[in-house]
Amino acid sequence: MKKQPAKITSHEVAAEAGVSRSAVSRTFTPGASVAPRTREKILAAANKLGYRPNALARSLIVRRTQLIGLVMAEWENPFYTRMLRLFSERLQDEGYQLVLLTSNTEADADKAVRRLMQYQVDGVIVVSARPSAAAAKECAANGTPLVLVNRQTAGRRTSSVTCDNRRIGEDIVALLAGAGYRRFALLRGDPTAITGADRTDAIRAAVAKIRGARIVADLINTFGYDEGRRAIRDLWQQPERPDAIICSSDLTGLGVLDGARTDLRIDVPDELGVVGLGDIPQSGWTAYQLTTVHLPIDEMIDLAVKDVLARIADPDRSPRPMVANARIVGRASTR
Amino acid sequence: MKKQPAKITSHEVAAEAGVSRSAVSRTFTPGASVAPRTREKILAAANKLGYRPNALARSLIVRRTQLIGLVMAEWENPFYTRMLRLFSERLQDEGYQLVLLTSNTEADADKAVRRLMQYQVDGVIVVSARPSAAAAKECAANGTPLVLVNRQTAGRRTSSVTCDNRRIGEDIVALLAGAGYRRFALLRGDPTAITGADRTDAIRAAVAKIRGARIVADLINTFGYDEGRRAIRDLWQQPERPDAIICSSDLTGLGVLDGARTDLRIDVPDELGVVGLGDIPQSGWTAYQLTTVHLPIDEMIDLAVKDVLARIADPDRSPRPMVANARIVGRASTR
Repeated sequence: MKKQPAKITSHEVAAEAGVSRSAVSRTFTPGASVAPRTREKILAAANKLGYRPNALARSLIVRRTQLIGLVMAEWENPFYTRMLRLFSERLQDEGYQLVLLTSNTEADADKAVRRLMQYQVDGVIVVSARPSAAAAKECAANGTPLVLVNRQTAGRRTSSVTCDNRRIGEDIVALLAGAGYRRFALLRGDPTAITGADRTDAIRAAVAKIRGARIVADLINTFGYDEGRRAIRDLWQQPERPDAIICSSDLTGLGVLDGARTDLRIDVPDELGVVGLGDIPQSGWTAYQLTTVHLPIDEMIDLAVKDVLARIADPDRSPRPMVANARIVGRASTR
Repeated sequence: MKKQPAKITSHEVAAEAGVSRSAVSRTFTPGASVAPRTREKILAAANKLGYRPNALARSLIVRRTQLIGLVMAEWENPFYTRMLRLFSERLQDEGYQLVLLTSNTEADADKAVRRLMQYQVDGVIVVSARPSAAAAKECAANGTPLVLVNRQTAGRRTSSVTCDNRRIGEDIVALLAGAGYRRFALLRGDPTAITGADRTDAIRAAVAKIRGARIVADLINTFGYDEGRRAIRDLWQQPERPDAIICSSDLTGLGVLDGARTDLRIDVPDELGVVGLGDIPQSGWTAYQLTTVHLPIDEMIDLAVKDVLARIADPDRSPRPMVANARIVGRASTR
């Protein structure tokens, strides 16, 4: 048998301070009343013994853990790591702790959501990954509010925060077509994500309406820097080269720019225009100056946090789809 | 009074399945034995009711929560977000959940460590921030193993994982001096961090030994992209311009490169050499090609995780300082 470290209990603190256990409990309960001298004795004893009030034990009584689970995917994308940071700070300010799990596949996302429920988290936020309808149903059955960020499910049990992806698609095409570009290549990410599919549909529809415009290439599962850099080399071998590339992430756009400018000596933006998605800091760096879509990260986080907290406070509140407003940021990678 | 969502208990599952509560408990305890038909009935009832075995309640019995707290600072630096991702994946594989807190100051780090102890986490990992000796002492008193990553404290109660910062400083100077650079500028981060101070001391000592070499500028609190880009402009106004810049992060180095190449049209590496620290992916990108120090992120994580798990398993095991090996990666930003 391994020895366990002895965690100090409130009994031991009470004995050390010569007070009742209930006085110890009241000392560590916000708002509860204790005589100042008693409180002082208890704090000294607690400090001497290294006692920390057990938030978990309390959570079993109040049925709240003050834990919120966050499931992350797409760690490579600085947009999402920034989002994680802001979620962490915001939830900490609201008095919650964030339990972080990583998901690389839909099966992982389900496993992560189920693990979080085992920890009786008060709510679950899933960023850029999509748990199955079954897992969403289990959350609902367990009374655990679930919010998806940058993803949606078909079901009605789940809140979601997305941008208006159709509008984004239309705006990108309007910008490029207005600058005279006509031969579009799409570098897309996960083709099963509804957010991306909406954007792609809108791009196709918008391109179809412009005289002489057409989509000359459509590549999927192309979302990192290296993939972007490889993609432009492949596209340049095609019989019909694109004159504009629409990427589903800024990282891809930066890879395309390096491949185009350095490897292939393509004149950006005159010979080729490039548009990203996300507006990560690197896109504004001098060496890149990538035209992109600014996703309103603060607004997205605010919507997600407010929704999950409101549903923790009021379990009868319905989940709902929420939409944040994106805008195009024009830089030197387009005419 | 607000209504609370009803969390399903094992009592209710037992009633629904028409079995004993102990059978429900055994069904959800790895390795415990239950008759197959009983188990099936229980799983069906649990699924119907949306029951999830409560890992927290169990933790109060076994005095383990399978939670590990991680305190993060320096979110801007992709090196640390990558580290967070790898910690998350590794601990998840080991059956632990990660509770994430953000710290921007030393006071924050203390608060974060204390909050984590309230949750009775089994161990605490602090990345690139330094809790006070008092907070470290409380962890020790509470039997909670603490590991600092890329930071050290003077005390003996805390494990730490760092690189050999003196050796890194010597190697950088040897590379630059060997390539003929003589007028060094230092762009440093937090001057109170021991890791950085060790490196700076070693750089100074190494420069002092080289004939004709000198340090012409030493700027502190300079660690982001924007700071790097501003710093090179300031340095270029100086009466004695540097011919080599040693940065305490890759991000600073990338800012220096953009400022030097684009804003000031400086010939890198002939007129100016630039060295970073960390080896983030962007440093290898075509537009930059920054010479830097590769910090062995996988080795650092492995040492930290093994130490914290070993000390959870054996509370008598002593904390210890651990050192991982860094190496220089030569690229186009130096001769």
